[in-house]
Amino acid sequence: MEKEHRFNKEDLMDFVVRYMSKLGVPAEDAKIVGDVLISADVRGVESHGLLRLGSYYGNRISKNYIDPTTPFKIITETPTTALIDGGNGCGQVVSYKAMQMAIEKAKKSGLAAITVNNSNHFGIAGYYSMMALEHGMIGICMTNSQPLVAPTYGRTAVMGTNPISVAAPSNTEYPYVLDMATSAVAYGKIQLYEKKQEKIPLGWGIDEDGLVTDNPSKIKPGGHGALLPLGGMDITAGYKGFGLAIFVEIMCSILSGGNYLTQVGSPSKPEPTGVSHFFMAINIEAFRPLIDFKMQLDDMIRLLKSSPLAVDRDEILVAGTKEFEYQKYNEVNGVPLIQPIVDDLMKEAEKVGVEFPLEKAINK
Amino acid sequence: MEKEHRFNKEDLMDFVVRYMSKLGVPAEDAKIVGDVLISADVRGVESHGLLRLGSYYGNRISKNYIDPTTPFKIITETPTTALIDGGNGCGQVVSYKAMQMAIEKAKKSGLAAITVNNSNHFGIAGYYSMMALEHGMIGICMTNSQPLVAPTYGRTAVMGTNPISVAAPSNTEYPYVLDMATSAVAYGKIQLYEKKQEKIPLGWGIDEDGLVTDNPSKIKPGGHGALLPLGGMDITAGYKGFGLAIFVEIMCSILSGGNYLTQVGSPSKPEPTGVSHFFMAINIEAFRPLIDFKMQLDDMIRLLKSSPLAVDRDEILVAGTKEFEYQKYNEVNGVPLIQPIVDDLMKEAEKVGVEFPLEKAINK
Repeated sequence: MEKEHRFNKEDLMDFVVRYMSKLGVPAEDAKIVGDVLISADVRGVESHGLLRLGSYYGNRISKNYIDPTTPFKIITETPTTALIDGGNGCGQVVSYKAMQMAIEKAKKSGLAAITVNNSNHFGIAGYYSMMALEHGMIGICMTNSQPLVAPTYGRTAVMGTNPISVAAPSNTEYPYVLDMATSAVAYGKIQLYEKKQEKIPLGWGIDEDGLVTDNPSKIKPGGHGALLPLGGMDITAGYKGFGLAIFVEIMCSILSGGNYLTQVGSPSKPEPTGVSHFFMAINIEAFRPLIDFKMQLDDMIRLLKSSPLAVDRDEILVAGTKEFEYQKYNEVNGVPLIQPIVDDLMKEAEKVGVEFPLEKAINK
Repeated sequence: MEKEHRFNKEDLMDFVVRYMSKLGVPAEDAKIVGDVLISADVRGVESHGLLRLGSYYGNRISKNYIDPTTPFKIITETPTTALIDGGNGCGQVVSYKAMQMAIEKAKKSGLAAITVNNSNHFGIAGYYSMMALEHGMIGICMTNSQPLVAPTYGRTAVMGTNPISVAAPSNTEYPYVLDMATSAVAYGKIQLYEKKQEKIPLGWGIDEDGLVTDNPSKIKPGGHGALLPLGGMDITAGYKGFGLAIFVEIMCSILSGGNYLTQVGSPSKPEPTGVSHFFMAINIEAFRPLIDFKMQLDDMIRLLKSSPLAVDRDEILVAGTKEFEYQKYNEVNGVPLIQPIVDDLMKEAEKVGVEFPLEKAINK
């Protein structure tokens, strides 16, 4: 196993702020970007954490593919809705503000929905849906993303992995937090199997002919082949994942007038991405007393967790549980970063002339 | 192939009204039930059509498991929200009224969400989401249902097939209409394979040990085994379908204080079912001009339809397309009912003392 360093959240945050400030990102905004990325590492979603600080954000800001000042322009607004132009800024900053706006509106109006165009990759969708929890609300968040997924019966990557996240507050159990791509798997998972030279399960992706394959090397979205939508092939209802991916496009890009499907750029290409997002807050007190909702959600979660297990399984995991357990552990033991990520962060830090605080690792 | 009769919609509607009136359902309400059921047959969703008139509705009303008058009681209400007690009435009637209420509220407030408890099976979810289309709105509808599906790593049926439907208006293309169970497949599909003595694909269901099986006879939810959530096993991301099913529960039963999971009754048991529903209307004009939305949705649908096809495939089907094509054909050629359904309807008609208008079949 690769060596792992652990850090205090504050030290990593301080680093992100110093790093992004050098790139012209206001400190307040850098703190938002930092909090979203570090939260991913804290919650065990390493693929969306500081690993991406350089490649998805820093490098792109330094080349002017992302506007470091994140203009936040309200195009239309009502007491329950807004359409925001994300100004080709940092996805996290516009998303944080948009979700905050949704929550404020829902406090007064019961419900609110905000759609955002002209933005960039925003990190983990679950960060924004979870913002609703402490306000006694259900939070919903979606985003489109660069094409990696084929529609059912197609053969090329046309859709993004278009995630949906929903968070709902509980009382004593962990909150329910769904944060799922509408593809069967993330592309990173297929690359991992390729590296290990292992076959992938049927249903993850298709080859250049559009046929399901167990060979990870045959799946190179953008080149040949593509990921399959959630459900896999048509016989296992992949058309439902396809339908969900288009639901996400409708709420994000069609409702906002933003880029959709193959119009969405990739963070690996030298151009703005034009990503669209959607945020919703639902104020539970508008329907029934919050405590009743929370206690009933607890009851439902307990019923799920106590239902009979399949052989050789030891736990039924309700959406979010695994991530809250990572969080609990990492908040005590420090945020984990494996050696290659630390190496990369040190390189990125050097590029802009700041120091990565390796000496502050708490498990030296 | 079984003999198929075709009818004018009006003749079938007249029959449903005469049939339900005998059972004490007000004519206005019977028309709603009839329209929902007949729409299913028109759209090719035979499993949710008149096939169920007797077993799911008529018989249950006659035994007082469903209240024929469908009391519609508002528990809480704001300009954007409502919580409705469905009064153990006809699911279609309370759902039609709730969605209408959501649309009226969204006209004024931009958005609206209505949650309903203490209801019964409501037919096709797509009927209610589609009600939003002619008002220039996005419609969303969900419902919980009797336990047939196991959570990931479970071995018994704990969750319903909990469908999600979303409808969005287009300009010249067919509207987008997603109407999907959050299970991999419907139980009826497994029964069909059992009848044909064929193996089912891995990922549809599990046996009594909670292990995935290709033997349809090993899947008898309530007895032994269960359906799997969308995605199938964990390795193909069945936990996402599990997460979606719980999302549906949260919006329907936890937000409304209704029955959830194993508390939801089955239409085949001699007791009220206590089903919960959720409805949402999103007024597109609150965000951007409706025509812009519609034209952009057309563009996206065309882009999907024109993307390269997998070998041996001849069309990419956007959610709803197939059903609109059935509808187009059946509205010209009559509503199709196969002989066994006609036989059943004649039997049900006799029970309450009305006539089924077989003589009005238009393809005699």
